[in-house]
Amino acid sequence: MTGCTFGIGQGYCASRRTKSFADELAQLTEAWRQVVRRTRNYMDVAIEMAKTAASLGEVPVGAVIVAADGRIAARAHNRVRTLKDPTAHAEMLAIREACRASSSERLVEHSIYVTLEPCAMCASAISQARLKRLYFAAHDPKSGAVEHGPRVFAHSQCHFRPEVYGGIGEREAAAILRAFFVARR
Amino acid sequence: MTGCTFGIGQGYCASRRTKSFADELAQLTEAWRQVVRRTRNYMDVAIEMAKTAASLGEVPVGAVIVAADGRIAARAHNRVRTLKDPTAHAEMLAIREACRASSSERLVEHSIYVTLEPCAMCASAISQARLKRLYFAAHDPKSGAVEHGPRVFAHSQCHFRPEVYGGIGEREAAAILRAFFVARR
Repeated sequence: MTGCTFGIGQGYCASRRTKSFADELAQLTEAWRQVVRRTRNYMDVAIEMAKTAASLGEVPVGAVIVAADGRIAARAHNRVRTLKDPTAHAEMLAIREACRASSSERLVEHSIYVTLEPCAMCASAISQARLKRLYFAAHDPKSGAVEHGPRVFAHSQCHFRPEVYGGIGEREAAAILRAFFVARR
Repeated sequence: MTGCTFGIGQGYCASRRTKSFADELAQLTEAWRQVVRRTRNYMDVAIEMAKTAASLGEVPVGAVIVAADGRIAARAHNRVRTLKDPTAHAEMLAIREACRASSSERLVEHSIYVTLEPCAMCASAISQARLKRLYFAAHDPKSGAVEHGPRVFAHSQCHFRPEVYGGIGEREAAAILRAFFVARR
């Protein structure tokens, strides 16, 4: 027993709690802002890669892989036509580059940022590489396989599911894709 | 009018037809035997690749790509560990090799023979490469994505569907996989 009446004690605790909640909320808000800013910065790098792809006549999709310490481990854009390789999607090239750099076939604790919802090939490769998080910009009802069609991560045949965050930088990434396809018509 | 009564004409035609049917049936049966023999021969090459993979400590899966004229355009086995590349499945390596050889990102009129039902990554790559036919040996309820789970070819997000023939050489391919995993336990 502290000598306080139950009522006073409760009031005191509530006021301390209120102050602590306000501080924590401010800290969380700031931390969240930083996460959003960082996420957007990485996606901007991926968007730059997509623009480079477009300038080379490749479907404008870019990808960036980020290590746990925030270092960019790989960046790539679609190069199907240039390499004459149907598997040369941005995600695949970035995964292979990051694995080469880390001498490992698993990218544990790494995140991938892509400007378009991955197709089944890339979604499955992301899972096989054990990438922890997938951030993608534009949703792709036509060929996407994360939130559409095969929904690769949603089946028991997928043995590792990354966290998935879609729609970051969607407007810009979608505009680049739209402009590319309009120009080709 | 040929001067034959309707009955005689019909009988005559029927007898000619019977003979023709017997010939055609024999020819078709022989053609079918040849197709089965050739298919099995190509699958045997893929099975040899799978055995090589096992001897290197890789999951024993092999793949062979065959051009329209029957020439083997590429053969590969799983090399995920050797190359430290999560995308280095037999099918992916064979597709990339065949595309390199033909200087094209599309393998139109080509067929692929694989010892195991492809995963989502490989199934999608087979579609993107426009491979006309997929022959696979062992069904894979655990990771397969053609007849299991994501069923990659079954959705509108898949823009090209190969013909699919499963179960050719299944017993032998499955035995090699089983022996590999038993030995690793």
